[in-house]
Amino acid sequence: MRQLEEKILKDGKVLEGGILKVDNFLNHQVDVAFLKKLAQEVYDHYKDAGVTKILTVEASGIPLATLVADIFSVNLLIAKKHKSLNISNNVYFSKVFSFTHKQENIIMVSKEYLHSGERVLIVDDFLANGNAGLGLVDIVRQAGAVPVGISCAIEKSFQSGHDLLVKEGIDVFSLARIKSMSENSLEFVK
Amino acid sequence: MRQLEEKILKDGKVLEGGILKVDNFLNHQVDVAFLKKLAQEVYDHYKDAGVTKILTVEASGIPLATLVADIFSVNLLIAKKHKSLNISNNVYFSKVFSFTHKQENIIMVSKEYLHSGERVLIVDDFLANGNAGLGLVDIVRQAGAVPVGISCAIEKSFQSGHDLLVKEGIDVFSLARIKSMSENSLEFVK
Repeated sequence: MRQLEEKILKDGKVLEGGILKVDNFLNHQVDVAFLKKLAQEVYDHYKDAGVTKILTVEASGIPLATLVADIFSVNLLIAKKHKSLNISNNVYFSKVFSFTHKQENIIMVSKEYLHSGERVLIVDDFLANGNAGLGLVDIVRQAGAVPVGISCAIEKSFQSGHDLLVKEGIDVFSLARIKSMSENSLEFVK
Repeated sequence: MRQLEEKILKDGKVLEGGILKVDNFLNHQVDVAFLKKLAQEVYDHYKDAGVTKILTVEASGIPLATLVADIFSVNLLIAKKHKSLNISNNVYFSKVFSFTHKQENIIMVSKEYLHSGERVLIVDDFLANGNAGLGLVDIVRQAGAVPVGISCAIEKSFQSGHDLLVKEGIDVFSLARIKSMSENSLEFVK
């Protein structure tokens, strides 16, 4: 999505360690009017997929996921993140290693809110190594539901997440795909 | 707001320790269509207050805050929560004790995104002892900005938060105000 690419070039900063800082419009300060445009693109891509629920994981994907759920007129389900497994039998969970925080988290959703046969669209702000996405797909499948796709605002296409998810049979749709980045340059997938 | 009161009576569960579980529409599964109605009520209350920014703290207030920011056509700012103070000079921060998690957290926002003269509406899902709200008010004032109000979906009016915030001169607007609750009964402020 050209507008998002332009916004990343204008407002994004590449920090040491391969971190792309876009906290002036995406995940600290949130430009909600702009995110609505992203949400509309997500809708346009999956509008015929029979989506019955949007799934994200706390916290930074929630604004975009909320706006996507609004356009689809379906409920949003927010997976909770925990450091340890101290959980009732009443949840689906998956283990996810966070490279940003260098630790393993448990992500979980209540079995009450995810059912067999549902068609679930996963939405997040970033896709990099795909760990969070794979964990969410795992949870959706545990419930007997169908992961109809994963849509992210920004994909680091030079990391493995996109390909791993495609291998899992997932329709991955990222609004901006970064081919390479360094402190001096940032290039998108054509 | 009568519709919210009815929803709490129908779907809410009071757990041990004074916890009101409303995770089937507010903070785990999120009924976005219903939250839009709440957001509209918030807008109606503060529409003449000259709001320039919505502020919330991660994570469970984000869906409502996103929808409120959308109606006001202003940016949303999401305060980050940290367990320890390992922070640059470039942030405003405040210490907040969480009774739910029995620990002190630091909440913070980047100085880049909160400026003198801004008129900030704080939005969250719950108001109980008011610690998070007071911390956010503190941050807004550190920036030289004006906290025009605090709006929450559900207020536990039998706890001290509402009065503490009113004493700080804040316009508190809660959409449902719980006077008392136990496992067998739940009563709203008339």
